[in-house]
Amino acid sequence: MVALGFTTAVAILAALATGTNAQTFRRTAACPKLGCVFPPDQADFIAGQTFDIRVEVQAPVNGSEAYNGGVVNDKFSLQLSHNGGELVDVTKFFSVEDPKADKYNFTYFEDLFAQDSKAPTPVNVLSKSYRNVQLHKPGHYKAVLSYNDGQTTEANWEVLEFCEAKAKNVIFFVGDGMATSMISAARLLAHKTVNGKYKSKLKLDEAPAYGAQMTHSLDSFITDSANSASALFTGKKMTVNGLNAYTDSTGKAFANAKVETIFEMYRRITGGQVGIVSKAYIADATPAAVVTHTSQRAQYTAIIEQFLVGVTGNYSWYPWQGVDLLFGGGAENFLPGPGNGNISQFDRWAKAGYQVGYTKTELNAFNNDDRALAIFTRGNISTWLDQNVYKKTLDYALLPDGTAGAYDQPGLKDMTIKAIDILSARAKKRGTGWSLMSEAALIDKEMHVQDVDRALGDLLELDDTVRATLEHLEKIGELDQTLVVVTADHGHGFDVYGSADTKFLKEQNSDRKKRNAVGVYQNSGLSAYTVPQGVNPTVHDEYAGPQGEGFPVTWDPRYSIAHGWAAFPDKREDFAINAGHERIPATKNASGYFFNPQDNLDGFAMTGNLDVSEGQGVHSLVDVPIYAWGPGHELFRGVMGNVDIAFKVAEALGLGRDYNATKEYTK
Amino acid sequence: MVALGFTTAVAILAALATGTNAQTFRRTAACPKLGCVFPPDQADFIAGQTFDIRVEVQAPVNGSEAYNGGVVNDKFSLQLSHNGGELVDVTKFFSVEDPKADKYNFTYFEDLFAQDSKAPTPVNVLSKSYRNVQLHKPGHYKAVLSYNDGQTTEANWEVLEFCEAKAKNVIFFVGDGMATSMISAARLLAHKTVNGKYKSKLKLDEAPAYGAQMTHSLDSFITDSANSASALFTGKKMTVNGLNAYTDSTGKAFANAKVETIFEMYRRITGGQVGIVSKAYIADATPAAVVTHTSQRAQYTAIIEQFLVGVTGNYSWYPWQGVDLLFGGGAENFLPGPGNGNISQFDRWAKAGYQVGYTKTELNAFNNDDRALAIFTRGNISTWLDQNVYKKTLDYALLPDGTAGAYDQPGLKDMTIKAIDILSARAKKRGTGWSLMSEAALIDKEMHVQDVDRALGDLLELDDTVRATLEHLEKIGELDQTLVVVTADHGHGFDVYGSADTKFLKEQNSDRKKRNAVGVYQNSGLSAYTVPQGVNPTVHDEYAGPQGEGFPVTWDPRYSIAHGWAAFPDKREDFAINAGHERIPATKNASGYFFNPQDNLDGFAMTGNLDVSEGQGVHSLVDVPIYAWGPGHELFRGVMGNVDIAFKVAEALGLGRDYNATKEYTK
Repeated sequence: MVALGFTTAVAILAALATGTNAQTFRRTAACPKLGCVFPPDQADFIAGQTFDIRVEVQAPVNGSEAYNGGVVNDKFSLQLSHNGGELVDVTKFFSVEDPKADKYNFTYFEDLFAQDSKAPTPVNVLSKSYRNVQLHKPGHYKAVLSYNDGQTTEANWEVLEFCEAKAKNVIFFVGDGMATSMISAARLLAHKTVNGKYKSKLKLDEAPAYGAQMTHSLDSFITDSANSASALFTGKKMTVNGLNAYTDSTGKAFANAKVETIFEMYRRITGGQVGIVSKAYIADATPAAVVTHTSQRAQYTAIIEQFLVGVTGNYSWYPWQGVDLLFGGGAENFLPGPGNGNISQFDRWAKAGYQVGYTKTELNAFNNDDRALAIFTRGNISTWLDQNVYKKTLDYALLPDGTAGAYDQPGLKDMTIKAIDILSARAKKRGTGWSLMSEAALIDKEMHVQDVDRALGDLLELDDTVRATLEHLEKIGELDQTLVVVTADHGHGFDVYGSADTKFLKEQNSDRKKRNAVGVYQNSGLSAYTVPQGVNPTVHDEYAGPQGEGFPVTWDPRYSIAHGWAAFPDKREDFAINAGHERIPATKNASGYFFNPQDNLDGFAMTGNLDVSEGQGVHSLVDVPIYAWGPGHELFRGVMGNVDIAFKVAEALGLGRDYNATKEYTK
Repeated sequence: MVALGFTTAVAILAALATGTNAQTFRRTAACPKLGCVFPPDQADFIAGQTFDIRVEVQAPVNGSEAYNGGVVNDKFSLQLSHNGGELVDVTKFFSVEDPKADKYNFTYFEDLFAQDSKAPTPVNVLSKSYRNVQLHKPGHYKAVLSYNDGQTTEANWEVLEFCEAKAKNVIFFVGDGMATSMISAARLLAHKTVNGKYKSKLKLDEAPAYGAQMTHSLDSFITDSANSASALFTGKKMTVNGLNAYTDSTGKAFANAKVETIFEMYRRITGGQVGIVSKAYIADATPAAVVTHTSQRAQYTAIIEQFLVGVTGNYSWYPWQGVDLLFGGGAENFLPGPGNGNISQFDRWAKAGYQVGYTKTELNAFNNDDRALAIFTRGNISTWLDQNVYKKTLDYALLPDGTAGAYDQPGLKDMTIKAIDILSARAKKRGTGWSLMSEAALIDKEMHVQDVDRALGDLLELDDTVRATLEHLEKIGELDQTLVVVTADHGHGFDVYGSADTKFLKEQNSDRKKRNAVGVYQNSGLSAYTVPQGVNPTVHDEYAGPQGEGFPVTWDPRYSIAHGWAAFPDKREDFAINAGHERIPATKNASGYFFNPQDNLDGFAMTGNLDVSEGQGVHSLVDVPIYAWGPGHELFRGVMGNVDIAFKVAEALGLGRDYNATKEYTK
């Protein structure tokens, strides 16, 4: 039954294999051989998209790929061709100078055994970077790195042209970590059914275009929010922690090869407005990925700096004149202090002409003429559940100045609608369009700590925000010229599998008996969240809860959703809401993360399936949904890669030009 | 912050509540009050769809809803109206006779405390059924049950007309239990990537129409495969275990109100062919739901009988002349013996003119003229993995006659293609179209026992079957007249969250150290299933494995997928393949289900989050995907209910007629 083709292939591969079976740790992403090209093979481009090229030649000193005693052969060159034409040296192809090669070394572990026995593999490297280049003409490009006396590493790139705009404006909503299973759960909590038929549904359910996207990264099948947001916004697969820059072997944050985002292109080509809204600290990966560039998402100070003035220092990039608005949390990254130098970014942005605010009241008082910075909290903005239901928790939320009690916070809807007002007014005045990235960031944060109620609250807030956004766009007459895309950057392995009688669970004395509280199949019953506590959910009523249509009537019914995660640390489960505080399922002891002695004391114990160094749940592989409205929405139907989304937005906005289009932006 | 509307609602509800807060156990589905109407409120119909009506009036003897000392008031009546017209007695509305009321009683538990203390609630009942009726005219219908001196229970139904057929034939593929997360995982195992771009994809990924459907049931948010298949095939939400019949309070299997399926309608209206293929035992829920009617899916003998001769006995239904073909497992339900009486269904079907076969060889030798029954195994057909990779397991697979070694089994593709050949040839000869339900049943069976490799193997087999089906339809010239729908009946909460170094895991001595084998985010690496064992997955090659394109090259790489379930019994996890046998994660001891002492001995222990009476994983809430090709495919885009699928298939086939259309079927 072994086909001939396979036998032959095995024989060929046996020769190639030579022990290189390590894969959990990789030498460098996008370097299958000892020569590396960034952007790598299969990195397609929007016509005119700006990017850096970087090549590396590596020589491991020992290990399975040891080469030449670790001495790098310094004869290497990069050549490019277009549509099968002649290969031309990179300096001629782009009319750039050939830089002097950088020389450095790094180490890595080949596998867990090597890590356990502290046996790293050192690698010597020579590299060159060619910065700030563009490919304008559509078609096929080939980049060939020649090294080590005849070895080559090839990169094939397609360049796609999109000249005609269907949409003038774009709103890109990211439900961070929002998998379909969580949408199903949120619908169950917030919308009533009669005999299995929903009486109302999510706004997302009504989208005229529905699709799914694959979230895996360049070199790992599980992504983080930096590299997946970069994929959504540049159309390029990247490495974990990378923000619109290819993680190379330097270990440095800013030397890496950068790629222009669709928001940067939109500003450069149309002179349009660019706004960023998030419920996370605003230097977090997803908002940062709109316009900043670093392989290390934790470079918060630099990210705030790049929002305002773009890439600085030796890493040549074209001038950036600042985002038009920035609303979110994370005041700690704006204040003078350790890591931030002596600069108050609040003062700096104010001097640069931004309106600066710290509360919802101040947000609402912003004029619609001037650029705006509003940072409402230290760390993340509070969750929808904390802001709207368990408000006592706000006693501990920190204002930007560090004092407790950030009561005057906006929700995602407040920030998004105000952002639209400012951006559209400024765009109108300038004869341009506008773009906005709005992130429901806390869906992800709360899934990480297995706080399902807070996560679903913020998911419902996103749905409510999308509904309000579409209504507002209609009201201000921009609905028919605005593309609205809603998607996620990755999922969490999560699902609801029944109901749990929380009263019964609490009253049992053993872990095994507590599990008897779970009802599956016919005993899952109906959603008890859509009726007041103690009311039989088969009795259907017309009233909504205190937060109105689209939110649960009750957040702590006796019969809650029994739910679980594919990946989790040691924890206790009681299926009850954490009313007083965000959940922290595991805490660290000498042996790693373990049951939090303060968490879910009435629950039953579950030992986790993650490395004990992980205290939280992690991202998962599942394809995530896409929803779209407005001009170009039809492009977002079906199954696609996350990188395809950037191309489709670029197509809707007409951003792929075969000439170096620019339109001056005025602050 | 409590809005006035809410306060008022709470006050009103407090009066209604009166302790009826039990929901895990329900008195009877679709009976919010003491009068029940089946089909219940919100049950919409395809014009001309045949159904039974049943009403019940209940009087609980005690408990939170006790009524009249348990004595049922025998004065009750059912009236109907069309489009707001006058309410007319049911006997006049349908020109049927008024039957004598049935009188009986049943008991149920109000909640887990009642169950624990063995305190049931007895209920007395009077009921009437009106059988075999149809609503031909489109529009709104209201059915009002009046009982208990002025109480009413109302059912509102819409009837939808679809007169023009877009498609002549239909193939309805069900990937049982197939959630999006499993599709993402299957793609990862079987398709190569280069720097994050898939070089090939699933056939499902290419569908011109993509959507999602909500799977919840009539009276519980977690469904089983009987009631979800009934929803897909009738357009009606039903109760767990119900096959095209509303589970009533009798506890009896056949007294319930039945609903005609789209396959029955197709046969009745067009005289077309109806075929059924499944990898499960053929009396299992999904194949049974194509044409049979019972509230108890485990009535296997009756189901086999109904495939051949339809509903018999006192439960009036129109004549059914037998399915055209039936291919699957489950010989035990065809043989004389306990539960089956003295009848060999094999002999019976042969006498009725069916070709009968027991092996793949016999299947392939079937002529395309005569109806056919092929049953290949006792129990389920073997999984794709067992049939194709770990064939030694077939030594234990049972032939229909009970002897071990069922080596000559077909896969889903073999059965489906042969089914198409027979159905299309017979249809051509009769001047009709044909319909086929083909089920990838073992995806679900294997997810239940947490055997991820076997589940994903059968998912990939489904994808391969869809690909082959579309090619075959083109070859025989029927592609442009055949609607092909692929969907699932429900999901399993499952996801991949990283990779696991199975070698490292096995060599560690403690559970906590074993968990260190899991790599997340950047350490998840690339799929090691697409290259031969020991080859670095960053090396990309063109060859396929022994099973060809669309299947993994290796099923047991050192770096496997780290994966988990939202719901599971006690188990051990080692992330390694179960080459020698299907996995059985938990076995029963005196305290319920517990770690199987034979399962995954090298793994680390995980205590479950299910009731200890559950030995397997369970279904989950997540919306499942829909894919469609062919005429009418555009109907299947976007988010919908599972019940909508039946209406869309009916629309594509033009099955909703405002007259009592029939075309004679010839055997």
